[in-house]
Amino acid sequence: MAKAVEQVNWNDQGLVPAIAQDWRSGEVLMLAWMNREALELTLREGRAVYWSRSRGALWRKGESSGHVQHLKELRLDCDADTVLMKVEQVGDIACHTGRRSCFYQRREAGEWRAVEPVLKDPDSIYPGKA
Amino acid sequence: MAKAVEQVNWNDQGLVPAIAQDWRSGEVLMLAWMNREALELTLREGRAVYWSRSRGALWRKGESSGHVQHLKELRLDCDADTVLMKVEQVGDIACHTGRRSCFYQRREAGEWRAVEPVLKDPDSIYPGKA
Repeated sequence: MAKAVEQVNWNDQGLVPAIAQDWRSGEVLMLAWMNREALELTLREGRAVYWSRSRGALWRKGESSGHVQHLKELRLDCDADTVLMKVEQVGDIACHTGRRSCFYQRREAGEWRAVEPVLKDPDSIYPGKA
Repeated sequence: MAKAVEQVNWNDQGLVPAIAQDWRSGEVLMLAWMNREALELTLREGRAVYWSRSRGALWRKGESSGHVQHLKELRLDCDADTVLMKVEQVGDIACHTGRRSCFYQRREAGEWRAVEPVLKDPDSIYPGKA
């Protein structure tokens, strides 16, 4: 594991962007960030673990919501500063808004329009936050 | 155009990551960065324009290689700090190595392995650099 992780070009904050893509549909689900420890845990646990920049803490995707992302494949880009995960998205919901993908806003007629349905009420995803 | 661009959450360097995805196959082609001007030009010209952090300059994707990315759809994520472009990739090559996607390295047995074919010799893509 160490060898692959060594070859990643971390930015000056020790992070890289990590894209999660549905391994079957190819839909881009989200982009979050990883530090070295998050990537190592992702590989060790076989599920997406990010670094939450807002909380300054490791973020095991799905730890509150249950919407875990099981890692199917890991890719690295040509300059080694972005990783792409092909994942199996538990619950088919990646977004905290209850939508499948975080990229649910599409530009139409000069404005952002929410074009993806809410599959689950966020209050029922995060009951402790209500 | 201004209104949609206003709603983007630029980072402290005035940038956002921009993911390019093949609009037909769903393949993730690359991730690069945009500043406000790059996003405005992308929308105005209907082709991906990035901000090259290494060169400190606007980068009209394909200006040297011809491998232009025509914008088919633009998405914004839930916290408005990443954009996703669905693009038509001219020449079916996004990567400067001559591969379709920049994410051509797959982790296998603890190492990164190049798993996508080189479709065109980079020297013939960038003859001036030879």
